[in-house]
Amino acid sequence: MTFASRWVEPPDGVSEVEGGGLAAGFRAAGVAAGIKPSGDPDLALLVSSEPGTVSAARFTASGVLAAPVVLTQTRCRLDALRAVVVNSGNANAATGNRGLEDAARMQGAAAMAAGVHEAQVAVASTGVIGVPMPMQGVPRGVLSARAELDPAGDAAFWRAIATTDAFEKRLTFDVALPAGGTVRVSAQAKGAGMIQPSFATMLCFAQTDAVLQAETADLLLGVCVKRSFDRISVDGQLSTNDTAILMASGASDVVVDPETADELALGEALDYAFRRLALQMVRDGEGAERVGRVHVRGGHGPTVERAARAVANSPLVKAALNGGDPNWGRIVQAVGAALPGAAPLPVDVHIQGVQVCAGGVAVPHDAAELATAAGAHEVDYEVGLPGEGAETEVFFSDLSHGYVRINAEYTT
Amino acid sequence: MTFASRWVEPPDGVSEVEGGGLAAGFRAAGVAAGIKPSGDPDLALLVSSEPGTVSAARFTASGVLAAPVVLTQTRCRLDALRAVVVNSGNANAATGNRGLEDAARMQGAAAMAAGVHEAQVAVASTGVIGVPMPMQGVPRGVLSARAELDPAGDAAFWRAIATTDAFEKRLTFDVALPAGGTVRVSAQAKGAGMIQPSFATMLCFAQTDAVLQAETADLLLGVCVKRSFDRISVDGQLSTNDTAILMASGASDVVVDPETADELALGEALDYAFRRLALQMVRDGEGAERVGRVHVRGGHGPTVERAARAVANSPLVKAALNGGDPNWGRIVQAVGAALPGAAPLPVDVHIQGVQVCAGGVAVPHDAAELATAAGAHEVDYEVGLPGEGAETEVFFSDLSHGYVRINAEYTT
Repeated sequence: MTFASRWVEPPDGVSEVEGGGLAAGFRAAGVAAGIKPSGDPDLALLVSSEPGTVSAARFTASGVLAAPVVLTQTRCRLDALRAVVVNSGNANAATGNRGLEDAARMQGAAAMAAGVHEAQVAVASTGVIGVPMPMQGVPRGVLSARAELDPAGDAAFWRAIATTDAFEKRLTFDVALPAGGTVRVSAQAKGAGMIQPSFATMLCFAQTDAVLQAETADLLLGVCVKRSFDRISVDGQLSTNDTAILMASGASDVVVDPETADELALGEALDYAFRRLALQMVRDGEGAERVGRVHVRGGHGPTVERAARAVANSPLVKAALNGGDPNWGRIVQAVGAALPGAAPLPVDVHIQGVQVCAGGVAVPHDAAELATAAGAHEVDYEVGLPGEGAETEVFFSDLSHGYVRINAEYTT
Repeated sequence: MTFASRWVEPPDGVSEVEGGGLAAGFRAAGVAAGIKPSGDPDLALLVSSEPGTVSAARFTASGVLAAPVVLTQTRCRLDALRAVVVNSGNANAATGNRGLEDAARMQGAAAMAAGVHEAQVAVASTGVIGVPMPMQGVPRGVLSARAELDPAGDAAFWRAIATTDAFEKRLTFDVALPAGGTVRVSAQAKGAGMIQPSFATMLCFAQTDAVLQAETADLLLGVCVKRSFDRISVDGQLSTNDTAILMASGASDVVVDPETADELALGEALDYAFRRLALQMVRDGEGAERVGRVHVRGGHGPTVERAARAVANSPLVKAALNGGDPNWGRIVQAVGAALPGAAPLPVDVHIQGVQVCAGGVAVPHDAAELATAAGAHEVDYEVGLPGEGAETEVFFSDLSHGYVRINAEYTT
């Protein structure tokens, strides 16, 4: 699977590893444990063999948190995770105390399987909300997964964390650092949008064999999540289960110190990896046929953010993107609605590089040429607001008949 | 057309006037002036013959305002309007100085036709954004409309303000006031959602022959708009052109003084009228097949409001409503997403009166019975948050293939 996008370019020093595989020190597996009625793989295990492994994690900001998120946030050493156990097919959300007990049982089984302390095992779930976990097959599933742990187990791991994903979202890079060492980065992600038909969630697990301090892992993960999974929208719907975890085994013996050129290079590689996986989630958004990027510039950060979100989540803009319609009036309407009381707002709009609105007023342009450009697979919207110094972007999928079909005709 | 909804009941003293017609003192007309390419009626004129007419107005909060909104807000005596001129087929938005001049020309022509000062003529537009007004036929159209002004002209007026509305939204009531007098209320509204395929906007024009002070008109309009047009959503998209105007001619000689039982009765009649028209807009929402109402209770007004909006505008909740799917996990997800950092959130959810979630945990219920209830034309969602004293409701349409078809396949 080759990846190409006008918006995401690999930085210098990053080379794709043919055939994939995990960063050194990690093994993974994925098995079927009877959670998905289909019998597809639904239980995934990832283990680091290195006692000095450091880690960092980020979770959904939702006011309603799934049990595995609560458990992992409150009972784990997030800076020293050694293993991750994930199930798909059930979100274990809105399941009360029983849900917390089920998540703890998963954690305990995985800790035994990995031979590490329970506090070093993160738990993540994705699937239907409000249904108790079918736990019968889970303990045996964890044992099966343990027997299948493999340095090339990232493909099996990915299959077991996926729900309605239409295509694989994983990658393996070698990163040649400026000071001479080479480290490996691997990552696996699932998500066909912020949320699925009753299946919620984006999950991303990334590994490197670089020697990192836990603080560096946390810094890199935080920055990269902000520029990737925080910048996408399929339907504007935040999940109860979102989880991103970075683990560094140190197995390469290549030390990446804070505030060095090597740290910058590793950060750029992770940034590329996360942005690429995030863009794949948008491309795989439910029913998605086209992807848009809205880039907003102006003088005030929160204003720029609100405007970009409003455009990316406007059902009218998304439907126009689906129809290949360069309907810029909808962009202006969405921006205006996001900024009440700001009138008169001298907004500029470019679509695919063609200016259609300047200072809030229509600009004559070749409508036929623009219509052709707006039929591309990736469509670029630029919005200019008054002032300078702030900018942001959001990647978003279109609104299609496929989205309605998936979400209206699916019945729990 | 008979109107019935479980959510909107006529108050005592209100009786429908068969055949419609305007409140005494008002005449209206609607003609074709060449603005809509279809040749359908697109220019509407409403005039009060009473020099003492008082009025009140409310407008969109968008940061991008259409020219007629700017003109009416800045150049009119909003408490003493005598006439309204409206066009459909063009929003006159994002049209710059030319748009303001065009709106002023409409105002001037209508002022001459009505024999009143320009500052007493409100202008409203609805239609495509970013295209200059086709003004050629407008002056002659205003003259034609003047010649056709009629006390029973509300039907023609409505046709000329409508765009993609699938059915008529107007009403005429007699209101028997407690102190003995009877006044008439008439109202005409358009809107198949907050915004249409390039055609934006909800508009509502209401008339009464009661003798009101301008302050009373403003108070009644403000309260009634907050409980009606502020409480609906088709797609969460705020228009650049929304306008609601109440005019009171005084032609009945029935004086309605502030803080009397009569004012309360008139207010209840207007409240019923506006809620009924608002609910009709949701029912006529683009592609709409079902209507939902989410009612949220809790201890904090802004929290309750955010949660209600999040549910009403969630594409997942709306698609489930379309599919008749009692998918309460999506309600919980939408509420959680609207209230970041509030975890653990002990949320209660009832659908059609059946409790499905208590304190954030699933409640066993008869799924088949609930699925049948969720297939109704009007579906009720109740959400309980911690605390007491605050509550709100939002009426919303579903997300259907029709919505995507209208908004993706329509090309400007």
